[in-house]
Formats: sequence, C-alpha cells, structure tokens
Amino acid sequence: MIASEKLRQFTQEVFVACGMPLVDAKLAADVLIEADLRGIDSHGVARLSGYVRLYEAGRANMHAAHKVIHETPSTATIDADGGLGLVVAPKAMDLAIAKAEQVGTGWVAIQNSNHFGIAAYHAMKALPKDMIGISMTNASPLVAPTFAKERMLGTNPICIAIPAGKERPFVLDMASSAAANGKLEIAQRLEKEIPLGFVQTKEGHASTNANELKNGGSLLPLGGHKGYGLAAAIDILSGVLSGANFGPWVPPFVSFLNPLPNLPGNGIGHFVGAMRIDAFRPASDFKTNMDLWIQRFKASERISAEQPVLIPGELEFNMHRQRSQEGIPLHPSVAEDLQSLAQKLSLNL
Amino acid sequence: MIASEKLRQFTQEVFVACGMPLVDAKLAADVLIEADLRGIDSHGVARLSGYVRLYEAGRANMHAAHKVIHETPSTATIDADGGLGLVVAPKAMDLAIAKAEQVGTGWVAIQNSNHFGIAAYHAMKALPKDMIGISMTNASPLVAPTFAKERMLGTNPICIAIPAGKERPFVLDMASSAAANGKLEIAQRLEKEIPLGFVQTKEGHASTNANELKNGGSLLPLGGHKGYGLAAAIDILSGVLSGANFGPWVPPFVSFLNPLPNLPGNGIGHFVGAMRIDAFRPASDFKTNMDLWIQRFKASERISAEQPVLIPGELEFNMHRQRSQEGIPLHPSVAEDLQSLAQKLSLNL
Repeated sequence: MIASEKLRQFTQEVFVACGMPLVDAKLAADVLIEADLRGIDSHGVARLSGYVRLYEAGRANMHAAHKVIHETPSTATIDADGGLGLVVAPKAMDLAIAKAEQVGTGWVAIQNSNHFGIAAYHAMKALPKDMIGISMTNASPLVAPTFAKERMLGTNPICIAIPAGKERPFVLDMASSAAANGKLEIAQRLEKEIPLGFVQTKEGHASTNANELKNGGSLLPLGGHKGYGLAAAIDILSGVLSGANFGPWVPPFVSFLNPLPNLPGNGIGHFVGAMRIDAFRPASDFKTNMDLWIQRFKASERISAEQPVLIPGELEFNMHRQRSQEGIPLHPSVAEDLQSLAQKLSLNL
Repeated sequence: MIASEKLRQFTQEVFVACGMPLVDAKLAADVLIEADLRGIDSHGVARLSGYVRLYEAGRANMHAAHKVIHETPSTATIDADGGLGLVVAPKAMDLAIAKAEQVGTGWVAIQNSNHFGIAAYHAMKALPKDMIGISMTNASPLVAPTFAKERMLGTNPICIAIPAGKERPFVLDMASSAAANGKLEIAQRLEKEIPLGFVQTKEGHASTNANELKNGGSLLPLGGHKGYGLAAAIDILSGVLSGANFGPWVPPFVSFLNPLPNLPGNGIGHFVGAMRIDAFRPASDFKTNMDLWIQRFKASERISAEQPVLIPGELEFNMHRQRSQEGIPLHPSVAEDLQSLAQKLSLNL
C-alpha cells in the first residue's frame, strides 16, 4: 500500500526525468494516479515503465507541442506532435469544453498521439462545467472482427460522463472488446480458465485459455458482431477522422514491437467531445431527472437480495474514496517495476 | 412478394387515412419501406398496424406540428407534439445537418415523440452531405440491467453512418440488447431454442426459451454489464436530455398497454447528430482513408474461406439492391395484417 500523493510525486519525477516539462508531467501523472485511485490498475502506474520505454525507443515525444491544424466553431483537429495521449487528451478536452461554452458543443479529433490512459479522466473534465463528456481512442490491434482470425482492432474504449444533481455522476467507461487484456493477465496469474467469448485461437476457434493471446490468438469483440461494429466506429472516429493510423496500422504500445511500414496516418488517434446540458434544456431540470434516473435504477428489483444494481461509475467512485484514504495497493510485480525505474533514473520511491 | 412501390403507396394511404398530411405520410412511408428494403422486416410495414392502433388509442398525433423549444448554434431540442418519430426524426436530422453546415456539427434532442422506425434512415441522411450521421432512441422497457430482474430499458438502438469514397458507406445500426425482440419471434415461430445470453426468466435465471418474455422474463443487454451501460447512455441522451420519458417510464409501443402514471417527461425521446467531415479534415482525404479502411477489413484473414468478413451495413446494402429489383417478401401474418388494415380503412392493396 502506498499513499497516492507519494506515487503521484514519483510518477511526475519520472516524466520530468524523461525530459517532460513540469506542467505536462503533473498532468500525465494525474491521469495515471486517477486510474489507480479508481481501481483501474491496468491503466495506472503499471504502465509507467511502458511509457518510458516508448520514450527510450524514440516513439514518444516528451516535449511535444500540440497544434490545432483544423478548426470550425464546434470542432478542431489537433496534431499531438508525437507526444503522450496522457498530456494532449486533457488539453483537447479543454478545447472541446471552450467550444461548447461558445456554440453548445465541442468536438476534437487528435492525431499523432500515443496512449491516453483511462478514457474516463478526459470525459469527466466536462462534469464540473455541467456538460456531458465523451472520449474514445483507438489502440494497438488485438481484437478480431467477426468471421476473422486476424487482429485488426484495439480494445478501443469509450467513455461517456453525465452529470447528476445530488447523486454522483453517471460514468460509463468501457472497452469495446468482451474483455480487456488486464482480465486475461489476472486469469493467467491465477492459472484459471476464462469464459467463452473472451478470446479465440489463432485458427479462430473458441477458447477458454487465458494464454491464447500469447499463442497468436485474438481478443473477441463485445457480444459478437455488434461489438465489432462499435470498435470499428471508435477506430474510424479516432483514427480516420483525425488523420491518425487505424485498424491494424495503429502503432503498438509495447516498445519491442515496431510500427508497420507504410503507415496511412500519424500515430494513434483519439476523439473527445463536450455538450453543454443547457444547450438542450435547463441544467437544473436535467439534474433533477438524472437523480430520479439513478435512484430508480438503483431501486430495480434485484435478482439476489445481496447484489444491488449498480450505476455505471459507482464502483470506481467508491474505490476512489477508499484509496484516497487508505492508499493504493501495488501488485508485487508493479512495485518491482517501479523500483527498477527509480534506480535507472536515480529517483527515490 | 410485393413491389416496394406498391407497398409504399399503400403505406402512405394508410397514414393519410389516419389524418396525416400527405407530405408527412410520404416521409413516414419512406422510413418504413426503407426498413423492408434493407431487410429489417421487424421495423417495416410489419409495424404499420401498430402505428394505426396507437393513433386509434389517442396516443399518436397524426397532424403533429413539431416545435424547436431550445437552441444554440450547434444544438436544438424539439417537441414532437406527440407525433410519430417516423416523421419528426428525419426533420430533426435536417436541422442537425443545417447546423453542421453552419458551425461544423449539429445535435438535436427530441421529446414528446413516438417510435422512429430504423435508426439507419435518419443517420444516413448525413451521408450525401459528406457528414457522419448519428441517431438513437429509447424505447419501451424490455431489458433488465445487470443484477436486476426488472424491465428497465428498451432495446435502445444506435446508428452511426460514415461516408466512404468508392466503397459503400459504413452503417452500423444495432440494438443495445443482446438480441432484438424480432429474433425471439422468429425462434418462437420455428419452436427453436435461443442462445444463452438473450433472455432471462422473471426470476432472473438464464434461459434458452424464446417465449421467456411472454412469461414475464426480460431481454438481456449486449455482452452483459457493458451493454447495460450503453443502453443506459442511449436512454439518458434520448430521454433525459430531451425532456422525454426514460427508463421504465418510456410509454409502450403496443396500444394495449397504457403508459405508467406520473410520467417524468413527455413521450419517448430521440437524439440525432451530424458532423461535417471537413470540419475535421478535407473530405477527400478522409474518403480515401475510409476506402482503405473498408478494403483492409474486408481482406482480414478469414476463419472459414466461405465466410467473408463483413463491413457494418454491407448486408443491408445488398438486400436493398435485391429487394428494389425483386420486391419485398411479406410474411403471411404481415400480409394478412395489411389486408385487414386495407379493409378497415377502405383501401386497396
């Protein structure tokens, strides 16, 4: 268990040691620590050494200066200058929010970026402004389309964050694959089988083997062909609309795999948006109804008396409160990884 | 088999016989016939008598005059005056397109409406304008949230239509439930079992019985809790943001069930949007990359040589071409239903 503030300080110092300006390092660290606080362990400091390796491989620009390369009153396209999505995505969201303040909604496509951490961080920036926030990204290909045995799509997550009144906000943050890679890794560690529908073999057969991905298999889209369509739409909005890479050309997050030759775009792509509630109806009316929505859904007749019906984001809010007080538990392999990072960069943890 | 033009003429006459102005009746008929042409038989003329029964029950205003009740440069909210979604949704989409022409994107929430047919009809209006179209709606509660045994959400569909260059557009049109009710009805007719994950019993147990919904059970969301989150987000954007009803309060499509008392909103709700491609990057660059996207995905390594990988919308485009030439096959029960409608309204079919 480690206090989140200690972990935040260390994360920030790691980015600074890689040449990132302090203001950007604070932002990147905040995105990672929020993931750990929310209980999304796979997207927090567990990835820190991965970002550093991307930098060492010359594939992440730590002093990137993003540029708006196209613009209308409600839209913009940003070239992230090869920097980290952790840094550019919150800034893109700020721009979307500023446009929404002016004309009701704002939508920003980002190209030439790298992985942006948890989608929820970016979408949730809209909440204090009484706006609905949306964020999505494409990612390294691991998921096979329906009827295919080839990895063509990332686990392409989408987040939609919706403010409420007295209740906590509705925050749906989900991968468009049946399971994210993190779930498979947990099953691998425990040497357990995984449910059918998560992965297939490299020949395209159903499998319950958590190691199938290592054997050349692929992840499966959420609920079959609909999940394929959803992942594809996220890929197109994030990749094709922004001018980033898409589909099988999305550069891999892991530094030991090289991007494919003849890439059709720049880096990986994201898409974020903000919609002012009062661009549609008075925010107070909306929030009153959102509170009613949340209360009514929590009161749905339960299958089992012990298991309440959950609102998207509820578990993460609870985890955030708990870990803010008690600290963040680090898996031994992550703790070790951070220690060797500290040693390499002459930092203390 | 019946020629689509004959069916279109009849459908139009039915709406006119219910007091709908001719221009609106043409539009409503077009939405239904497009569903049949695209092979979405459950959403075409099979529903015509359902709309008539809603009118007879005083729950559909056939001479509705929709009103814009809230507006910003990129958004609007429409009160559909209790009319059919078939009529108001295309008009809302026209408004979204007009706003996108002005400021890059346009987003319209609709309240006080009724069922809008296939989502694809509305979203696809954006395609000839070189825009991405989005449409969604909430619907009568049939789907249980994860851990619940109560019907709280509709099959809430979402469509995203994306233009390409030489290739046909990408058109994802999907329910957010694991299966739409139509699939269950087909299994009922054939007295076949359905896959696990489509429905649950009224106690919330897994079931393969296609009649489970009639027994008080519920549909299940796509792929479990993620599909619940997706259906919920569609419900909130369509219902809460517009000021329509939401969740279990969405008025039933079937006229023999009455809406609940003390409704929190007006009618059912939709949400549509249009994004100009060249608000993000030149449309020709985008279309070149979309063609590449489509060609590359069609060329994905197949699991079986006989089953090609499909692009969302591909089957519907093929069906549209075939049925435009050969006519629309009507299930005997639908043909009978239309004949009794003809008799009742003194029309010829």
